[in-house]
Amino acid sequence: MTIRLEDMPEKEMIEWRRHLHKHPELSFHEVETAKYIRKVLSEFPNITISTLTENSVIGTLKGSKPGKTIALRADIDALPIVEESDVEFQSENHGVMHACGHDTHTAILLGAAKTLSGMQDDIAGTVKFIFQPAEEELPGGAKLLVEAGVMDDVDMVFGLHIAPNIPAGMVGIKDGPLTAASDMFELNIQGRGSHGSTPELSVDPILVGVEIINNLNHIVSRNVSPFADVVISIGEFKAGQKGNIIPDKALITGTIRTNDKTIRQFVQKRIEEIISGVCQMYGATYELDYELGYTPVINDVAATDIVRQAATEVLGEKGQFAMPSMMGGEDFSAYTDVVPGSFFILGGGTAEDGCGFMNHHPKFKVLEECFKVGAAMHTQIVLDSLKD
Amino acid sequence: MTIRLEDMPEKEMIEWRRHLHKHPELSFHEVETAKYIRKVLSEFPNITISTLTENSVIGTLKGSKPGKTIALRADIDALPIVEESDVEFQSENHGVMHACGHDTHTAILLGAAKTLSGMQDDIAGTVKFIFQPAEEELPGGAKLLVEAGVMDDVDMVFGLHIAPNIPAGMVGIKDGPLTAASDMFELNIQGRGSHGSTPELSVDPILVGVEIINNLNHIVSRNVSPFADVVISIGEFKAGQKGNIIPDKALITGTIRTNDKTIRQFVQKRIEEIISGVCQMYGATYELDYELGYTPVINDVAATDIVRQAATEVLGEKGQFAMPSMMGGEDFSAYTDVVPGSFFILGGGTAEDGCGFMNHHPKFKVLEECFKVGAAMHTQIVLDSLKD
Amino acid sequence: MTIRLEDMPEKEMIEWRRHLHKHPELSFHEVETAKYIRKVLSEFPNITISTLTENSVIGTLKGSKPGKTIALRADIDALPIVEESDVEFQSENHGVMHACGHDTHTAILLGAAKTLSGMQDDIAGTVKFIFQPAEEELPGGAKLLVEAGVMDDVDMVFGLHIAPNIPAGMVGIKDGPLTAASDMFELNIQGRGSHGSTPELSVDPILVGVEIINNLNHIVSRNVSPFADVVISIGEFKAGQKGNIIPDKALITGTIRTNDKTIRQFVQKRIEEIISGVCQMYGATYELDYELGYTPVINDVAATDIVRQAATEVLGEKGQFAMPSMMGGEDFSAYTDVVPGSFFILGGGTAEDGCGFMNHHPKFKVLEECFKVGAAMHTQIVLDSLKD
Amino acid sequence: MTIRLEDMPEKEMIEWRRHLHKHPELSFHEVETAKYIRKVLSEFPNITISTLTENSVIGTLKGSKPGKTIALRADIDALPIVEESDVEFQSENHGVMHACGHDTHTAILLGAAKTLSGMQDDIAGTVKFIFQPAEEELPGGAKLLVEAGVMDDVDMVFGLHIAPNIPAGMVGIKDGPLTAASDMFELNIQGRGSHGSTPELSVDPILVGVEIINNLNHIVSRNVSPFADVVISIGEFKAGQKGNIIPDKALITGTIRTNDKTIRQFVQKRIEEIISGVCQMYGATYELDYELGYTPVINDVAATDIVRQAATEVLGEKGQFAMPSMMGGEDFSAYTDVVPGSFFILGGGTAEDGCGFMNHHPKFKVLEECFKVGAAMHTQIVLDSLKD
Repeated sequence: MTIRLEDMPEKEMIEWRRHLHKHPELSFHEVETAKYIRKVLSEFPNITISTLTENSVIGTLKGSKPGKTIALRADIDALPIVEESDVEFQSENHGVMHACGHDTHTAILLGAAKTLSGMQDDIAGTVKFIFQPAEEELPGGAKLLVEAGVMDDVDMVFGLHIAPNIPAGMVGIKDGPLTAASDMFELNIQGRGSHGSTPELSVDPILVGVEIINNLNHIVSRNVSPFADVVISIGEFKAGQKGNIIPDKALITGTIRTNDKTIRQFVQKRIEEIISGVCQMYGATYELDYELGYTPVINDVAATDIVRQAATEVLGEKGQFAMPSMMGGEDFSAYTDVVPGSFFILGGGTAEDGCGFMNHHPKFKVLEECFKVGAAMHTQIVLDSLKD
Repeated sequence: MTIRLEDMPEKEMIEWRRHLHKHPELSFHEVETAKYIRKVLSEFPNITISTLTENSVIGTLKGSKPGKTIALRADIDALPIVEESDVEFQSENHGVMHACGHDTHTAILLGAAKTLSGMQDDIAGTVKFIFQPAEEELPGGAKLLVEAGVMDDVDMVFGLHIAPNIPAGMVGIKDGPLTAASDMFELNIQGRGSHGSTPELSVDPILVGVEIINNLNHIVSRNVSPFADVVISIGEFKAGQKGNIIPDKALITGTIRTNDKTIRQFVQKRIEEIISGVCQMYGATYELDYELGYTPVINDVAATDIVRQAATEVLGEKGQFAMPSMMGGEDFSAYTDVVPGSFFILGGGTAEDGCGFMNHHPKFKVLEECFKVGAAMHTQIVLDSLKD
Repeated sequence: MTIRLEDMPEKEMIEWRRHLHKHPELSFHEVETAKYIRKVLSEFPNITISTLTENSVIGTLKGSKPGKTIALRADIDALPIVEESDVEFQSENHGVMHACGHDTHTAILLGAAKTLSGMQDDIAGTVKFIFQPAEEELPGGAKLLVEAGVMDDVDMVFGLHIAPNIPAGMVGIKDGPLTAASDMFELNIQGRGSHGSTPELSVDPILVGVEIINNLNHIVSRNVSPFADVVISIGEFKAGQKGNIIPDKALITGTIRTNDKTIRQFVQKRIEEIISGVCQMYGATYELDYELGYTPVINDVAATDIVRQAATEVLGEKGQFAMPSMMGGEDFSAYTDVVPGSFFILGGGTAEDGCGFMNHHPKFKVLEECFKVGAAMHTQIVLDSLKD
Repeated sequence: MTIRLEDMPEKEMIEWRRHLHKHPELSFHEVETAKYIRKVLSEFPNITISTLTENSVIGTLKGSKPGKTIALRADIDALPIVEESDVEFQSENHGVMHACGHDTHTAILLGAAKTLSGMQDDIAGTVKFIFQPAEEELPGGAKLLVEAGVMDDVDMVFGLHIAPNIPAGMVGIKDGPLTAASDMFELNIQGRGSHGSTPELSVDPILVGVEIINNLNHIVSRNVSPFADVVISIGEFKAGQKGNIIPDKALITGTIRTNDKTIRQFVQKRIEEIISGVCQMYGATYELDYELGYTPVINDVAATDIVRQAATEVLGEKGQFAMPSMMGGEDFSAYTDVVPGSFFILGGGTAEDGCGFMNHHPKFKVLEECFKVGAAMHTQIVLDSLKD
């Protein structure tokens, strides 16, 4: 059965979305947002509503026949950004903004829930609608939901992300690694200060930092395969106050992006080996605070074929494109770490449409005409996955 | 003729010095100090007093026979330091302190002037007593005096510096380079920032800084003779605010110490070559602010032999020691750059005597018993230089 | 129309291949090989034989209806290697060996030509069988043939390579970049020698080389996208004869692998910028000999779909696999640089079969049972491409 | 008592020297040389001849009164060099040459022995004439003689070296460090080779070597005082054969020059720390062969005053100059390590005289007119040291 875009509840989705956009809430504080989702969801027949972690909303729809369980996920939190977009329905919560489009994800999933709630007979199995808080803040709401068991009875999971630089309604699809693990480190080097004229009395922490950074670059160039996707970037180097005084310590912070678990662990090990080696070589000591971010989203091949087929049914071949890997992070990976799944990209318009400001930008904006495509994709994916 | 320590006006020197110590004035603001020097000097016979630059005092004593002109110099300015020493005659000008001992230099030179003012018959030539302001602040009072012609009629120049970590009354003597040129640089690297996950869009100013510092070290190890005395130290590296954002600029400041004019110029040239080369290699631009400090004091061999002989006469061989080169700076070099001269060190006591806090330390202190040695040295140097 | 493996001339292909294997000839010297190919080809009906460059053989088969022109290519040259394989039909030309499997490529293409020569009625268009000399030696026979016009009337081109470490008969397929551009450089650094005790008299070419290598590594880590596939490896560093003499020159050679034209040019530019920058910084001069190897084979998506479909028809889905990108080079790219095409991999057996010695190894060996798969693939590709 | 140059046995010294020059012998093979010295020495009255180590000759002259013991030393070995000088008395032992002037040292010491042998009444004490083999080869003949007790009864030791780039007969004198410790190292880095396209499979020994050399430079720039005289030079870097193969090992050799025992040991420790640190950081292993050369000659101040006074007596003030420190090595240090002594330089002519080719050059040459100065210096030193 093929879903038609015009059957999607477009008007309602726009209304829901605008409401959410006006009332954004920060990660782990989505109290009113969750209430609103519950309220909307409770208007649809056949859907059982429950909560698993704070501010999460889970809707469950059982088909008329038994079968597998498919989860669809939307994230619902906003960001600490002062909105500068030109929309009429600007944030009324000053300093908080849906600048990553989670309001659209939520409205789209509500649209799919409304549609599917009337199609029980076409469903052999169960659909789980997951409205997840706190995608923007470590450890991430997805991880907490997984720990609480949200995936225990799920066979496959799907999700989408809106993009403000892709024609509205286009669907980007990719097998394998889609997003990256985004880890951070903070390194404090302890040397020994001295006057600049007596370097021999010092353990120069600036030179130690220089050699650490120099050698960290060799991990990417020498220690990982040319086909591996790895970045190590230093964002901060702070040491000293005066040109003629060798300081006693230096601070270096950086980020590491990888999209393969083994390489991620290997890179972490290499980073510490290099820091440790250089410090030892120069007689310095160090403290390394290495913070693991989200794991990479690795799309399952079979799940992605379902997305690809759904896109072909809903949009034809022209409506989809091969999404390249990204170095950004997304906590949807907490789900794909435990069950097969696929995460896809939904075009939300381009600079020519007045969009083009990237996610997290104060002027972030997308076109609402893409909502029906997102809801249709969700619906089609469920129908294809749970057909009798 | 050999001078005896007991003939020096010890009591007066202590009185003058304590007055000066109580009333310190900052560089280029030595108004009352200059007045006081004039007043004291005017009490000695045969000395003509003049001024050449603001706050400078020049005393001129003509011997009874014609001959060469010998200059003796004392610096008279104080430092912006809150005194913490335990002397009874603490600074009454809060926040300003004679923490480098210029008060003692001044009192000692006044003592020598008093002594010499009564010895016209033993002098074939002229003695010039130079009380110089602003040794502590670039461009230095010495340079201004030289530009005003203070050395035009001088054949040889002598000066001393008190040291709070050498037994009181010991005289340190050295041929050739004694102090260092102390230059500074501030380097602003302009790269291009980007998110840490897209280094290819950036010109990474931290990496540029890293390679500059790495290569600057090779000047000392490769480009100058192992016998050359050169330091290049980086005191400050500041770039970035967040670990995952490659910043667009970096700041590096450092100091350069040399004691040879040719090498000093060569090192400056090499530093800019390396900075320029690395920036070009990585597509960054830079602004380099290179500030030349005082030139090194290079003691003339013949002038230093006069100091050595004077020390032997006044103190015997045991009262002197071979002073090693220092990496500190001193604007006495403005004089030795234009006429032969020698600068020597006068021990002011050690930690065992309750001294030991280095110059510029809030607890800096010296023993007054060394003053008579300083005055005797000055006197003997003049007598030996201008004997008939 | 679907081709069956059992219809392929397996016995003849084995016979032809063994003859070629016994009589290998080096690149640009394939005189007897070309004669033999002509002789075999001349036995098949409907094929016109011509020559375009020295030692090349072009067979042209016109279908019974007009249509596009499809080219199939085999390379025919051998390598300067002493054979150590255990086959009965070892090379009789000592020191020359078909250690890259070009003998099998040739026999397979002859097999396809024989099969297709009897199927004129199933062909709407023209088939061009290209037996190309000199794949193993720059500038490569493919480039010369393209310059001579071999692709001028071709719409699509296909080729295969046998692999001694993949189960016999498996077909490896990939869209986009398959092989890499493999460029080489030789760098001669001219410094100025001196005794080791006087580094200041030298321009130390070892240090210059050290800094060049150190900075070259930053191209991969900083200047290209983490998703770009780039290697820069240094294989050789030669300088000096004695520990206490700083030599006057250093030699560094290296290889660069890329699979994207823009990045390839960019990397070449960056390499020269870094070499030039470091040399200038240290006062050295250099000569850089940068030799461009073959361009990367970029498989056309539509052409690759034809290969994928052919493999499905001939072998089913299980007979094919997703080939990953490789960092090796192949001059088939000269064709894909000018017309759409696709190059695929044919499994020739694994270590368990007694194979497993990689291409160019003296013990290189493949199983002959894969030949029929190669010929069937060629045939099916043509039939699918030129069906009415 | 002051010695006059014209009283020196100039003719004999020239004859002895020419004989030695014609018959040079390599280090540890000075059999005929030693015989010749004995023969000449045996012609002088009052000198007892003995041997302490192989090929050494010790002459002992007791003065008529008791007193201290002064040793004078000449080294007697030649070098494996094919002579290219234009002298009439070229080496008759092809491939061996007195290219360091030890023939002149020997003849001069014989001249002093002849002179002193007739002056017993002017000597209160004992003179020891040491003709030492093997200065040119580790461990050095001096060390063996010291171990055999040659210095046990000696109070002070003196020696000279001829210089082909200083006006003939000028004497160079220096307190403190004169020559350097010249140590060598050979470093073999063991990495793991791989094809250049798979750096991730390698432990790249070239990169390990690069980082070792880069960091070794920081010892001189950061870890020792700017007043310390230290060189670390790399003379050799050898790794790899082909640009596209990462080799599995690299060889680095270098030299280290220091003139202070503590710094020498410190530098050795730092070198190994850096090598060890870099290897560990990259997973490589290494073998380090660190060969200690001669210790630095440190001239005793009192002994050097004797040399200075002798030069003044023999030549006046104009005949001497302040010798700077050198980074070359000399095994005379084995003596000064155990008793006070002084080593001085004797000018042998300049390029204007047709000399100018440095020691160890095949065209090395000196003027014979300086011999009488050397002999007079030796004689005067003894007379001044052992006067009643």
